[in-house]
Order: sequence, then structure tokens, then C-alpha cells
Amino acid sequence: MNMIETAAAAKQASVLLAVQDSTAKNAALQAIAEALLRHEAEILAANQLDLAEAERAGLAAPVLKRLKFDSAKLADVVAGVESLLQLPDPVGQTLSATELDSGLELYKVSCPIGVIGVIFESRPDALVQISSLCLKSGNAALLKGGTEALHSNRVLARLIYQATLSVGMPEKWLQLLESRAEVGEMLKLDDYIDLIVPRGSNAFVRYIKENTNIAVLGHADGICHVYVDAKADLAMAGNIVVDSKCQYVSVCNAVETLLVHRDIAAAFLPDLWKELQAHGVKVLGCPETCAMIAVPPASEEDWKTEYLDYILSIRVVPDLLAGVQHINQYGSGHTEVIVTADAKAAATFMGLVDAGDVFWNCSSRFSDGYRYGLGAEVGISTNKIHARGPVGLEGLMIYKWLLKGQGQIVADYVAGRRQFTHRKLDKSFQMP
Amino acid sequence: MNMIETAAAAKQASVLLAVQDSTAKNAALQAIAEALLRHEAEILAANQLDLAEAERAGLAAPVLKRLKFDSAKLADVVAGVESLLQLPDPVGQTLSATELDSGLELYKVSCPIGVIGVIFESRPDALVQISSLCLKSGNAALLKGGTEALHSNRVLARLIYQATLSVGMPEKWLQLLESRAEVGEMLKLDDYIDLIVPRGSNAFVRYIKENTNIAVLGHADGICHVYVDAKADLAMAGNIVVDSKCQYVSVCNAVETLLVHRDIAAAFLPDLWKELQAHGVKVLGCPETCAMIAVPPASEEDWKTEYLDYILSIRVVPDLLAGVQHINQYGSGHTEVIVTADAKAAATFMGLVDAGDVFWNCSSRFSDGYRYGLGAEVGISTNKIHARGPVGLEGLMIYKWLLKGQGQIVADYVAGRRQFTHRKLDKSFQMP
Repeated sequence: MNMIETAAAAKQASVLLAVQDSTAKNAALQAIAEALLRHEAEILAANQLDLAEAERAGLAAPVLKRLKFDSAKLADVVAGVESLLQLPDPVGQTLSATELDSGLELYKVSCPIGVIGVIFESRPDALVQISSLCLKSGNAALLKGGTEALHSNRVLARLIYQATLSVGMPEKWLQLLESRAEVGEMLKLDDYIDLIVPRGSNAFVRYIKENTNIAVLGHADGICHVYVDAKADLAMAGNIVVDSKCQYVSVCNAVETLLVHRDIAAAFLPDLWKELQAHGVKVLGCPETCAMIAVPPASEEDWKTEYLDYILSIRVVPDLLAGVQHINQYGSGHTEVIVTADAKAAATFMGLVDAGDVFWNCSSRFSDGYRYGLGAEVGISTNKIHARGPVGLEGLMIYKWLLKGQGQIVADYVAGRRQFTHRKLDKSFQMP
Repeated sequence: MNMIETAAAAKQASVLLAVQDSTAKNAALQAIAEALLRHEAEILAANQLDLAEAERAGLAAPVLKRLKFDSAKLADVVAGVESLLQLPDPVGQTLSATELDSGLELYKVSCPIGVIGVIFESRPDALVQISSLCLKSGNAALLKGGTEALHSNRVLARLIYQATLSVGMPEKWLQLLESRAEVGEMLKLDDYIDLIVPRGSNAFVRYIKENTNIAVLGHADGICHVYVDAKADLAMAGNIVVDSKCQYVSVCNAVETLLVHRDIAAAFLPDLWKELQAHGVKVLGCPETCAMIAVPPASEEDWKTEYLDYILSIRVVPDLLAGVQHINQYGSGHTEVIVTADAKAAATFMGLVDAGDVFWNCSSRFSDGYRYGLGAEVGISTNKIHARGPVGLEGLMIYKWLLKGQGQIVADYVAGRRQFTHRKLDKSFQMP
């Protein structure tokens, strides 16, 4: 099949997948879990092939680590699939119900988006996670994983697809793409594909966003800030900065720039610097910062940089509004933190900062679907529409307006023979 | 100001507009209504200039009609502005609340999208409607109206902007663009502009969608179908087809293609054809249709055409699924209707048809924000994400995740010293 045929088949499958009921979809998830466990040896052998090739190619240790898929990882992904069984079906929820007139009832009902194209990094466990999320949400999936995981992905995709087919899921609901050329073609097929979810580096996500008319859900940058206000508890502020920076440096919700109110900078920065040094963090500072602690200067470029490393840039600001302004100018709309004992300052910050996640007196690292209690996570979005911040299953949903009548026509309302009632109904959409 | 400065000013304004409370925004809406009434003579004089130029330029009668802005239209738009006063503030609604741990509370709170670029047709009343919708929803607006309405739009935009400024709305929250070149530049400014709402012809909306990385909310085509099932009440079906086609032919929710189940085609089509002829509708048909009624053949192109005129193409289909397949292939995802007495067939249709609005036993013309009871309408969307079908104020909203803590850090949870509770809270976000 060429890419258009692949995408058209996915679209056709999406229509049938959208009407699978919860029992059928949960049976398919159960079948996936069982098939993966039953074929453990085959999966691990394929992964060994990928690992051997990756080692021969001299790939870096972190890549090899992400690529590795052993019994422990298999148990993890199977647990993830099984946890989806417990979540309520996101499809078919009545979001609103209105009587337009006697016998004319309007329902807004959640439904799958349709066909989702997901392009993900080298971890084979991502394939299992994404497939099961798409299945639970009733979306057909076109998946492209990292080339270095090709053998692992092939086995996993085949096992998942066959397991779900055997319990009645529609043909071609899940298809694996194997070449970069296919991704390029996929980005052009906005007649068939409804949403692209890219997971990967900044440059990669930006490339995707700039090269498709299809809606893209994701984030390129995670340039997050902690702003320490004049009225901050400095011990708390220190803990939050260290956790936000050091708890896991290479992730999008780690802090990259610290903003400090001028009034407490001298009292705060020297001790903080010692602690950051103890954690191996290299600090860069604005001129005011450099006058207080002996760190190299930060350049304009630093304010725009997502280090993903043990580096922190620090800027002293004259007041809260200057902090907000810095964040709205240089931030990526991901996660922004204020530390203050002043509730009014916190309210101002939370209102004025334009970001998906705005926190008061806690670490930026809480910005995560699991920690938010969303269950499975599709990704983190810095979009301004549809879904923002950590995105759970509901990010893969949209709705239909369903109107049930008894022969009503608009001419009667325009002529004044009938009037709309527009009465809210407290009931769910149900067919007889 | 050049376009980047204009867009940057809008972004800055959007931050301040987002935190205006309901009282302040309603006072601004009230000020708009009063200013428009107070300056009626000036508005009508500017409109006379536009009309005189349009007549000299030989513009068609329908354009002149849309362009005309008289006392009656002024009263209408003022009533529209005042009706927004009654609607609840869409900003600041708590959409969910979760305790992550004792003293660590997560709130999902509605907020404006940010900066909306709206490009609209010749009607000056659209400018008033869009400005007041953006104000109520807390979004900064960049507006580009039809060139033929330039004098009217200038006066209206100035009056609205000054009236709102006088009661404390932020500078540059509303800006009028006057040239097509500015629109072209606007489409490139995805760093500043968060959503484009194009209102106009198919070709225009498609051009916008293909020439920007900014999210676009709208619809290019409205290729809507009525499917008359084997078990339809034929009198009801006839009424619905005539209303869907003839009640207002030049709108996006009018029907363009009729699909008829083979079993009732011979009983249904001859009488329907007579009635359509009485309404001046030209009918085209598939070969089976042409064998029953003496109409010219429909081509493949007809199934893809939005006539917006007194023309209807008819296709006989062997069964419900063939009807669904035709709709999913040729439809534009707008509004699709089934007429049937068979609830099971209706349920199948409503499940399998991929469209924003799917109706059972009523006219396609109900697909409209006012008729749905949404109050003000932003437009109708055939998008698959964010907002679908008739879009009210909520289409201009997104949300922020706001997390209130007491110094919590992630390291404590990773080390197992603290556990997440993930308890749903039944309260709204409030700052002390």
C-alpha cells in the first residue's frame, strides 16, 4: 500500500472503531496484555537485534538505555495497558443536553477525533502505550517509531494488531510506518489524518509544526521559570528551585531560568548558589546577579535556551510585573512557578502568566499527567487551543452534536409558528 | 506600527484583558452599546460613503445589501451587544479540581485563548458582533473587514475601542487592519496570534488554512446530505428535504445531495420532484434516479459540489451503509441528516457518520448557534479538534492548570516519602 492507501484505510477503520463499545475495547486491551506476555521471548529477541545494531552503530548510552526492552519493561507496559481497563470510556459521554423544542432534543456527545498520527522516539514501550491509548479512545493510529527500534516495534505492532483483530477490532485500525519518507507524506494528508502527535526533540517538533496543515498536539520547548517573590519563604524557595532544576534535568518541566525579586536577592542568592553548586549546577547570571555571586554572565540567548542540563540562568527583577513580563516574553507557555507568602501576588501571577501550567509554592516538576492524576498521558501541550498542559485521554476526544427530532423544519420557527424552548435537560444521550 | 508591532501590542493587551473581571467587561459592553447609539449619525454617514463607492464600482445587489448599515441594523447589533451582558462570564470557570496531596490542589480553570485574528466579509455588523464576543471572552482581537466596508468599519472600530478604553480596558486590545498585505503578514505571526477565524467563501477559508501555522477555526465547505431510509415516513422526509434545501439556499447548512434508500425510491422520488420543481429547484440524479424521474444526470463532480443555490443532486443507494459511505467520502463534516422511523438505523447512522452535526428526523437548517441556544455564535467549525459544529463563546476559551502548594517538591514523591491522594475536590478555584 502507498501512503494515501494506508491513510485512507486508517480513516475507514476509524469510523468502525468509533462505535466499538467499552466491553469490546476492554476485551481488546486485555487481549493485548495477554499477547505481549505470551510472546515475551519473541519481543526480547527482536529488541536484542535492535540493541546489537545500535551498539555496532555506536549510539550513545542514553539511547541504548531508552531502546532496551526487558522483562521488567514488559511488565510495566502490560500494567499500563491493564490500568486503562479501569478508566471510564471517554467515548459517548453526554457533555450537554438541551431541549430546543418539544420533541427536538440536542445532545453534545464525546467521540474520537478519528485518525491520529504519532511519531515517537526510540523507546519501544511508547508504541504499546500509544496504541492502547488510541484504542481506548477509539482512534485509528498511524505510528512511526525510531528507526533504531525497528525490530522491536515491528514485533510489538504485529502482536498488538493481531490480538485486537482476533477480538473484532476493525482492520487497519493500527498501522506501523517504517520510513521517514512516509512521515513526510503523512504530513500532507490532511484529508485523512486529523491530528499529529510528535514526541521528540524541540527541533523535530518544530519541523513537524511547520510542515503540515494537520493539527499538531505537543510542545517544542519547555522553557520554565521559577519566580521568587519579595515575600517568599526563602528556605521553601531554595527547595523548590533545587527540585525544579535538579530532580530530573533533561525533561521539559525542569526549570531553566530563575527570576528573583530585587528586595530578597542578596539574602537569597548566595546560599542558593552554594546549594546549586553542591548539586553540580552551573549558574549564569544577569549583571545584578553577577554582582552578588561570582558567576559568569548570562546572555540574551540564555533567556531563550532550554538547557535540559545542570545549568541555570538567574535574573534579578525589580518587581512581580517585570518577572511576569520576562516569563511571557521568553517562556514557552509550559510551566511557570511563583514562590511567595503573599496570596495577592500569587493571584496576580497566576492571572497574568500565559502558560498551560501556573504553580504557586511547589516544584515545576509536578507538571505531568501521572502526577495530575490523569491516568495515561498522551503528552504535554503548549498549544493555545484544544488541550493544554499534560494531556490525558480527553486530548484524543472531540464531540458530535446529535439532534433527535420528529419531523421539525426551520421554516416553522422562522415564520413564528413554533418557538424554541432552549431548556437544559438533565439526561444523557440514549437511543431506544 | 508595522504588523509585528501591532501583533505584539495585541499580545500584551491580551494578558491584561484576560484578568478583567465580569463587572469591568460588562461595563465595557454597556459603553459600546451607548457609544454606538450616541454616534448613530456618524456611523450611518460613513456607511453612506461605502455604499456610494460600492455603487460606483458596480458591486452586485447582494453585496450592497450586506454592506448596508441603517438604524434598524444598528438597533440589532446594539441588542446583540446587550444580550452578551446576560451571558455568564466564560473566563474563570473551574472545570475540574483535584487534591494531589494534602495542601497541594490542582485546578483546571477556563481562560481566554489570547489573540484572535478575525477576517470577515462585507457586513459591518460582523465587526460589532466579533469585537463584543472577543471582549466578553477576554481575547484581544485583530480584525480585518471587507475593503468595501472600510469607512463603516473605521468608525465602528474607533467608537468601540474608545468606549472600552474609557472604562479601563487595556490599550490595543482591539485593532483594525485595513490592507490585504496585513492579512498575509498576520498569517505568519504564530508567535503572537493564537487563533484565526476566517469568515467568507470556501476558496478564501481554504486559502487561509493552507497559508498559516496558526490554528484556524471555521469551515470551508458545507456539503450536507439528507439520507432517506427505507423505513422513513415519506411525508416527513419530503418536508425535511424541502426545508433543508429551500428554506435558505445560500447557507452552509443547506442540503446539497439527497441520498435515497432503493426500497422506497420509486415511491418517494416522483412526488418529491414535483414539490422541488414547485420551489424552483433544479434536480440532477444518478442513473437509478434518472430512470425514475426525468432529470439530467449528476456527475462525480456534483457529489463534491456545494451549490449554495436551487440545485439538488440525488443518489439512490442500496442500503444505510452505502449512504453512510457516500457521506463520509463526499461530505465536509458539517451537517448530515437521516430520516427514518427505525431507531436502530438512526443509531447506526449517528454513530458511523463523521460530522460535527448528525440529525435524526429534522431539517439540516437547525445547525446554527442561535437555534442551538448557544447565544452568540463565533462561527461553524468543521475542525476535528477544539470546537466542532456551531461554536459559541466557549470556542474562544482554553484553560490553565493552576496548582496551589505549600512548598511541595517532587523528590519526596519519587523517594516514596509522600504519596499522591488524587482526590476529586468539589470546589472552585479561589484565591484568598
